Amino acid sequence: MIVALTLNPALDQTWAVDGLALGESHRVPAGASRAGGKGVNVARVLHATGREVLAVAPVGGATGHLFQSDLARSGVPYRVVAVRPDTRRSIAAVDAAAGSATLLNETGGELSPQDTDAVDAAVLGLPTPDAVAISGSLPPGYSPARLGALVRLLRARGARVVVDTSGPGLLEAAAAGADLLKPNREELEAATGMVGLDTGIDALLALGAGGVVASDGEAGLVVAAGGERVAARLPRPVEGGNPTGAGDAAVASLVAHLAQPGDLVDAATLARRAVAWSASAVSMPLAGELGPDADARQAEVLVTPIRTEIPCP
Amino acid sequence: MIVALTLNPALDQTWAVDGLALGESHRVPAGASRAGGKGVNVARVLHATGREVLAVAPVGGATGHLFQSDLARSGVPYRVVAVRPDTRRSIAAVDAAAGSATLLNETGGELSPQDTDAVDAAVLGLPTPDAVAISGSLPPGYSPARLGALVRLLRARGARVVVDTSGPGLLEAAAAGADLLKPNREELEAATGMVGLDTGIDALLALGAGGVVASDGEAGLVVAAGGERVAARLPRPVEGGNPTGAGDAAVASLVAHLAQPGDLVDAATLARRAVAWSASAVSMPLAGELGPDADARQAEVLVTPIRTEIPCP
Repeated sequence: MIVALTLNPALDQTWAVDGLALGESHRVPAGASRAGGKGVNVARVLHATGREVLAVAPVGGATGHLFQSDLARSGVPYRVVAVRPDTRRSIAAVDAAAGSATLLNETGGELSPQDTDAVDAAVLGLPTPDAVAISGSLPPGYSPARLGALVRLLRARGARVVVDTSGPGLLEAAAAGADLLKPNREELEAATGMVGLDTGIDALLALGAGGVVASDGEAGLVVAAGGERVAARLPRPVEGGNPTGAGDAAVASLVAHLAQPGDLVDAATLARRAVAWSASAVSMPLAGELGPDADARQAEVLVTPIRTEIPCP
Repeated sequence: MIVALTLNPALDQTWAVDGLALGESHRVPAGASRAGGKGVNVARVLHATGREVLAVAPVGGATGHLFQSDLARSGVPYRVVAVRPDTRRSIAAVDAAAGSATLLNETGGELSPQDTDAVDAAVLGLPTPDAVAISGSLPPGYSPARLGALVRLLRARGARVVVDTSGPGLLEAAAAGADLLKPNREELEAATGMVGLDTGIDALLALGAGGVVASDGEAGLVVAAGGERVAARLPRPVEGGNPTGAGDAAVASLVAHLAQPGDLVDAATLARRAVAWSASAVSMPLAGELGPDADARQAEVLVTPIRTEIPCP
C-alpha cells in the first residue's frame, strides 16, 4: 500500500474569466472547487492507474469540509486529520483566451503542537505502507526537523519514502535518508545554494539522500540513483495542456516503483517513467489526471547517461 | 419594522494582494468571507443606527451556509429562505498600494418556480412591515414582472417600498408604483433609454413611481419626490475610503424615512440624509458601515432646487 501525504493541502477554487483586467469587475460563471495539494494529485494519479493508495491530509474549518467532500467524490481512498486552522485556499482566475492563470495562494494558518502530533500519529498509526510520498510545502507550525523525524520513523518501520518539498525541509529529508527526493531546479538550487542540477544533486546525496530526481520543466529531468546518473527528456515539448501537476505525476511514478518489493529499479527506468507520466499529465486538463498513453510514452523518452565523479564516502 | 430584501445575495470573499499581476502566482494571507449583497448592506446600516430591521435573502449550498453564518455573527436580525442553487460568490482581490480592486462576480444559479414562490412567501408571510427595501440585481429565474407583482402586493398591504435595481426590474417596479426608486446614473439611463438624470427620472415618474433618487457618484444625487426636485452634493469629495456600499447607505436612509408614519418628508430632507449617509459610508472600510458622523454630515450637504416642467397628468 502507498500513502500520499499532503501536509499543507489547499482547496483549489478556479474561475474562468474572459479578458481578465486589473481593477475591473467581471461577470463569471460559478467557480469549481477541488481538493488540491501535491500529495492529493499524487494519490489521484496512483488511484487512476489501479494502485492501492491512501491520501492523508490535515483539514480544518469550512474549506476543510469542502476539501473532504471533493476527495470523497473523487473515489480516492483518504484519511483526513482534523486540525484547528482552516484549510487554506488557492484561487485561480483562468483566462483561456490569454492562456494565463492568475493565482492567489493562501499561506494557511499555523498548526498547533497538538495538530502536528495528530498528523504524524495518523500516518504512523497506519499499517506500515510499502512506500510513502510526502509532497508539497510544510504548513506553518510543522518544522523541517519534524519532517526529518517522520521520514526516519517511516524508514525505520520499513517503508520507502519519496519527498517532494522545498527549502530546509528538503535538506532535512535528505539528512533523514529519504529514498528519493524530487525537487525542481529552482527548489534544488535554492535549498542547497548550488548552481546547476548536478552540484545540487551531489549536495543532497552527500547529506544522506538515497537518490534524487531533479526536474527542469520542458528540459526534462536528471535522476541519480543506485550510483548511476541519467538525463531524460522528451524529443519535443507536449503541445498545449496544463503543466500543473506534472511534477506530481513524476512523484507518483517514483513512489509506485518504491512500493515494489526488491531492489529499487535503475536510474534509467525511474527516469523513463517519470518523464512519460509527467508528459501525459501535461496533456490533461486537470492536475492529478493521466492520459491513457502514460506508460506508452516511455518509448519516446530520450535517456542519456551522465558521468560524474563519485562523491567521497 | 423595516424589511431589507436581497433577492440575489452573494458571499463576498476578499483577499489582500500586494502587487497583483496578471498571469502570476501570489502568496496571500487568508481571505475574509462576508455575507454580501446590497440589501444586506442596507440592513447592516439600519441595524447599526438602531432601527428595527429584518434582512431577508434566499440561500443555498455550502456558500449559503457561510453566508448565513456571517449574518448570524453580525447580529443583524435575518430570515433566510432555502433555495436549490448555491449562493453565488463575489471574489475581490484588493491591491491596497495600487488602490484597485479586481472583482469576479458569479452570476449565480437559476431559481426554480418553487424557489421564487418560497422567497415571495417568506416576505409576504411576515407581519406587514412599515417599509421594505428591495436591493440589487434579480437572480436568474426571478422575473422583472414578479418583482413588480411583489411591489404591488406589499403596497396593497400598506407597506412603503423602495427599490434599488437595474434593467427591466426598475421599470416594473416603477409601473408597480414603488414609493421610491434609487438607480444610479448608469442604471437609470440604461433602463429608460434616456440620456441625463432629469429625463430618466421623468420616465420613471411617468410609469408610476412615487419618487426617484438618482445617484451620480461624487456629483451627488437628484431627488424627485412630492412634486419637488432637488440636486444635492457634498462641497468636496470624501477623501480615501471605500465607495462600495455608498448607494446602500443612501437606500437605508430612504427606507428609514419611508418607515416613519405620516406623509413622506420633502425632497430636500430625503436628499440631505441620503448624501450624508453615503458620504459617511464611503469613509468606512467595509460596505454596510456608517461613521459616527453620518447624521452630522447633513449640515454640509449643498441642496439646490431644480425647476422642471410638470409632466402632463
